[in-house]
Amino acid sequence: MKFTERLERAMQRSNSLVCVGLDTDPKRMPEGISVSDFNKAIIEATSDLVCAYKPNLAFYEALGDEGWDALKETLQQIPAEIPVIADAKRGDIGNTAAAYAKAIFDIYGFDAATVNPYLGFDSVEPFISYQDNGVFILCRTSNAGSSDFQELLCQYGDGYRTLYEIVALKASTWNTHGNIGLVIGATYPEELDTIRRQHPELPLLVPGVGAQGGDLALAVRYGIDANGRGMIINSSRQILYASTGKDFDKAARQAAAALRDEINQHRSGHTTG
Amino acid sequence: MKFTERLERAMQRSNSLVCVGLDTDPKRMPEGISVSDFNKAIIEATSDLVCAYKPNLAFYEALGDEGWDALKETLQQIPAEIPVIADAKRGDIGNTAAAYAKAIFDIYGFDAATVNPYLGFDSVEPFISYQDNGVFILCRTSNAGSSDFQELLCQYGDGYRTLYEIVALKASTWNTHGNIGLVIGATYPEELDTIRRQHPELPLLVPGVGAQGGDLALAVRYGIDANGRGMIINSSRQILYASTGKDFDKAARQAAAALRDEINQHRSGHTTG
Repeated sequence: MKFTERLERAMQRSNSLVCVGLDTDPKRMPEGISVSDFNKAIIEATSDLVCAYKPNLAFYEALGDEGWDALKETLQQIPAEIPVIADAKRGDIGNTAAAYAKAIFDIYGFDAATVNPYLGFDSVEPFISYQDNGVFILCRTSNAGSSDFQELLCQYGDGYRTLYEIVALKASTWNTHGNIGLVIGATYPEELDTIRRQHPELPLLVPGVGAQGGDLALAVRYGIDANGRGMIINSSRQILYASTGKDFDKAARQAAAALRDEINQHRSGHTTG
Repeated sequence: MKFTERLERAMQRSNSLVCVGLDTDPKRMPEGISVSDFNKAIIEATSDLVCAYKPNLAFYEALGDEGWDALKETLQQIPAEIPVIADAKRGDIGNTAAAYAKAIFDIYGFDAATVNPYLGFDSVEPFISYQDNGVFILCRTSNAGSSDFQELLCQYGDGYRTLYEIVALKASTWNTHGNIGLVIGATYPEELDTIRRQHPELPLLVPGVGAQGGDLALAVRYGIDANGRGMIINSSRQILYASTGKDFDKAARQAAAALRDEINQHRSGHTTG
């Protein structure tokens, strides 16, 4: 089954656009629990409230061998019907990108991955050639430094477009298998609006609510598609570390439910389909 | 000791600008040898001929746990005086970039890393804050797709510059610790010329000779600094797979020596210092 269809089903089943970012940092977990057990408890506490999970590979890589083991154990804990996105932001030349795609999709078995567009089509192609997997291309990232290059005004066709707009336009032309989406930070709601209007069909992965301060109401208003879905709203720290005590899983459940409900309130005012 | 100084010493000691890219692919190795043993033989056969080694992490990640073990064993085989560059092309928001930098510099102990600039300063800063480590920022990559975005003409100051030029200009302003370099493919010699003229002080990491078809004479002519050094010329497949037989290490040595000598011939015609 195509990734977009699996995602759509997961959104409908959970009535949720929430993705929990499993950016698990031992320094912020309660003492005496492993990364794997922490993630297991988070997943058990939230799996009926989310449309996706998104582990950022950096946090596992930073733990060495134990980290990779924890990642594998975590992936086994996630119910099969919930899509899992590898936040890897990979980008490399063709034969190397193929090795990364193999690691992420074949070895670890992720459903989707984030990729960096700076190296152009041949760096993205090995990922999109996995036709049943999703590929979210970084477009306008949630961080402050994203303005350094992404908002440069570039010559394109007969006029000028920002770099992030050109990335979205190219991504759209590359989308022959229907498995491409875009990453756009909730911290830049006007850019989210621009991209959604230009690309009504592309799924959006939207980080930046919660700890990063993005405006949730605007993000939902601008980011949802005609069916009131089409966007995955990621929250990591706000959910994982809702409590630093032993009740972290209960607190995570409350935080995820509150985020889902708040999103759904904003959705209900703007759904046209 | 600063990375640039270690690199300079390694170049002088070996009289070589050659870097061997340890992009080891089991499908291309002789049968019955492990990745770790293959790399060990390559390193023993070439360590007096090179100024650096550069494993691309994708090839190890693609092998799962065995790959990470092979990478660690490989790093132990490299003589301490030879700088080792993690070709990781990482780029992520601040706290995540910090986790990647920690993995690469603290856990694996690399001397330098390649990073992707698309996310801007705060994605690069955690790497450059390791003041004794080197950080090579992707500027104009060696692949065909690099033209998709890197050569876009963007508004900058009062005029227009290509995106890759703006990346180099920003990198230069970020270089307060003197540990930044740029990645520029030998497949784009004119761009190499442009960047070297604009940034005479930055070390360049130049892939794309050999299998990718870059023009070595032009690359050396345009890339060397006033001392006839300042550029690392990477070759991977041309050296690793010079022979597919049991004599692969001897063949690798011959290929590395031939590349070193050819580069030095081109250097001698253009050194001003």
